[in-house]
Amino acid sequence: MSTFDAVPDLGLNWLDASGDHAEIVLSTRVRLARNLQGHAFGPRARVNDREAVLSRVRQHSDRLDSLEGATVLHMPDLDARRRTILLERRLASRELIGSADAEPANGTAVVVSGRHPLNVMVNEEDHLRLQSVVSGLRLREAWSQVDRLDEELGRELPYAFHHEFGFLTSCPTNTGTGLRASVLVHLPGLVLTKEISKVLHALGQVGLTFRGLYGEGSEVVGNFFQISNQTTLGKSEEDLLDHLDQVVRKVIQHEREARQVLLRDAGSVTEDKIWRAYGLLRYARSLSFEELMNLLSGVRLGVSLKLLPELRVYTLNKLMIFTQPAHLEEAAGRDLTPSESDAHRAAFVRRILGSEGDVSPDGPESSDERPAPGA
Amino acid sequence: MSTFDAVPDLGLNWLDASGDHAEIVLSTRVRLARNLQGHAFGPRARVNDREAVLSRVRQHSDRLDSLEGATVLHMPDLDARRRTILLERRLASRELIGSADAEPANGTAVVVSGRHPLNVMVNEEDHLRLQSVVSGLRLREAWSQVDRLDEELGRELPYAFHHEFGFLTSCPTNTGTGLRASVLVHLPGLVLTKEISKVLHALGQVGLTFRGLYGEGSEVVGNFFQISNQTTLGKSEEDLLDHLDQVVRKVIQHEREARQVLLRDAGSVTEDKIWRAYGLLRYARSLSFEELMNLLSGVRLGVSLKLLPELRVYTLNKLMIFTQPAHLEEAAGRDLTPSESDAHRAAFVRRILGSEGDVSPDGPESSDERPAPGA
Repeated sequence: MSTFDAVPDLGLNWLDASGDHAEIVLSTRVRLARNLQGHAFGPRARVNDREAVLSRVRQHSDRLDSLEGATVLHMPDLDARRRTILLERRLASRELIGSADAEPANGTAVVVSGRHPLNVMVNEEDHLRLQSVVSGLRLREAWSQVDRLDEELGRELPYAFHHEFGFLTSCPTNTGTGLRASVLVHLPGLVLTKEISKVLHALGQVGLTFRGLYGEGSEVVGNFFQISNQTTLGKSEEDLLDHLDQVVRKVIQHEREARQVLLRDAGSVTEDKIWRAYGLLRYARSLSFEELMNLLSGVRLGVSLKLLPELRVYTLNKLMIFTQPAHLEEAAGRDLTPSESDAHRAAFVRRILGSEGDVSPDGPESSDERPAPGA
Repeated sequence: MSTFDAVPDLGLNWLDASGDHAEIVLSTRVRLARNLQGHAFGPRARVNDREAVLSRVRQHSDRLDSLEGATVLHMPDLDARRRTILLERRLASRELIGSADAEPANGTAVVVSGRHPLNVMVNEEDHLRLQSVVSGLRLREAWSQVDRLDEELGRELPYAFHHEFGFLTSCPTNTGTGLRASVLVHLPGLVLTKEISKVLHALGQVGLTFRGLYGEGSEVVGNFFQISNQTTLGKSEEDLLDHLDQVVRKVIQHEREARQVLLRDAGSVTEDKIWRAYGLLRYARSLSFEELMNLLSGVRLGVSLKLLPELRVYTLNKLMIFTQPAHLEEAAGRDLTPSESDAHRAAFVRRILGSEGDVSPDGPESSDERPAPGA
């Protein structure tokens, strides 16, 4: 059994929906970009730089409190499917895992803490990308996790730091604090009421940006938006986090208002849409990932609006992750064609929703105003 | 309680799916057009003609064996909703029940036998339209029923008959035998394999025609086609019926072959479509009649292909009839707006499918080749 198999829930603590506003905020992520003195970084890094960096990280990975019980996954040692699983779990970037045309470089790795919601990408764009991902809206928590790791690691390793610019990074947009915090929010209300573009525009005006589920360059699916800071320089980490926190709370407020508008102006249409999504998930024989995400978006809205109270947010989170192509192939123990993948996805969804117990087709509402045609 | 309320299953014996090929053939209908000597018929009939005809029918309606326990429903005595219910049960034509602009004429009526699958439209296009509707493909049975009624009635009432032309009717296309036999068939396989137009074209070439669910001028919904004879003159009733029976059996054969082709070439797509239809019926909050019919078409195909064996054809037949607008209003005890109607329809479907017992989302197939992703 490889190290990979030993950690089936590798880096997935944030799925448990335990955080604040968990039905709207899937997760909070804070990452710090760091580079080591004495080794070229960014595009100038050579294989010996990368191997030296990884070797220094390995030395410490198990000795630091934050990385207790850590698993070090060296990219070239993993097959393509498992590397993709790391991407699907948001533990590795598309750049890190390589592709069919470009095998991952020697020295590229992901370190996953055994006890804390922490991981480190090694030799991605920067030598180190320390990140913490936690459930719900918990910027302080994610920050304090990653800050502790940063301190512990910084005591052992010589960070590249400039007294004026701060931490030096491969791309100048990360220089300074090296911090990017992002919050993954589910905004179906704003999408359905067509208020979303206004909100996204306003984000830009206050120095924030948004991305899809898989970060930079990825498309928005299932009405999930990653909202994050654009600036990393000239402000303290606390200021950056406070600002993001305040804005995200406002976005959540707008989302809640949009949902009330939806219920008021199109209650039965919305309810119908939610139940249809559930019905399709419960019975479909083939689901593309995109369709699944759209249906899950409807069902998640239903859970949040207490129309589908028997379903747990945790279940919905789990469905998002384990229905991705590499996860399905891992479970099947073999490669899957796209149509096989769609069939396995649908079967998995049926199984999980079935094991959740049946949601009564009549929902939580009592039987008042229920027509009773005589047959 | 009006006479109407006394017969909740008024004329609905054919729903029970007891006939041959019941999963493909919904019903067989045979009707005879008859007019009485001494009274103007067709467009020349006046109110006193119509009233006299109805009065003569009333005299006999309960004394004939075929009409034992008959209910006579005089159109002007029924409110619009109940007249529409008769249309929805295919006991009355659109012409007979009148409309908001044209109240039904005095003397127009429907007589429904209490013990036999027989009914008579009085003062529609012809003085009398005797008809028998039975479940499945049973042309002989429907014919013998209506033939007996015709004989019994013909002994009491003087039919307009011409030694050369046969029975005289308002429209010359019905003259001769006055017989129209029609078989209501469900042909999703031929529709999905796009073979249907060929089959329908061939019907025309052998003197048959097709219509939608509600007869002349009605659209095809839910892949239901009424196949019937076009000619009524110059052939014996037996010949007409035998010909129709032979052709319909061929159509059924083509439909079965088309289903096999579907399963072979697009098995998983078809299965997915069927289960999605079931999932939507099971959970939707709003269903138009047209959408319902399309979903029921998918589910009916699934039952026929043994993919949804827990469902009875009888249940599907019942859903078709009792979800029509006037039936829903009757059950609700009030008028319904279109959107209320869609909501009541969806609620009724959920209730009936729920009382049928849950269909396992995994269907009848065993667990072989079933992916088991580990979550």
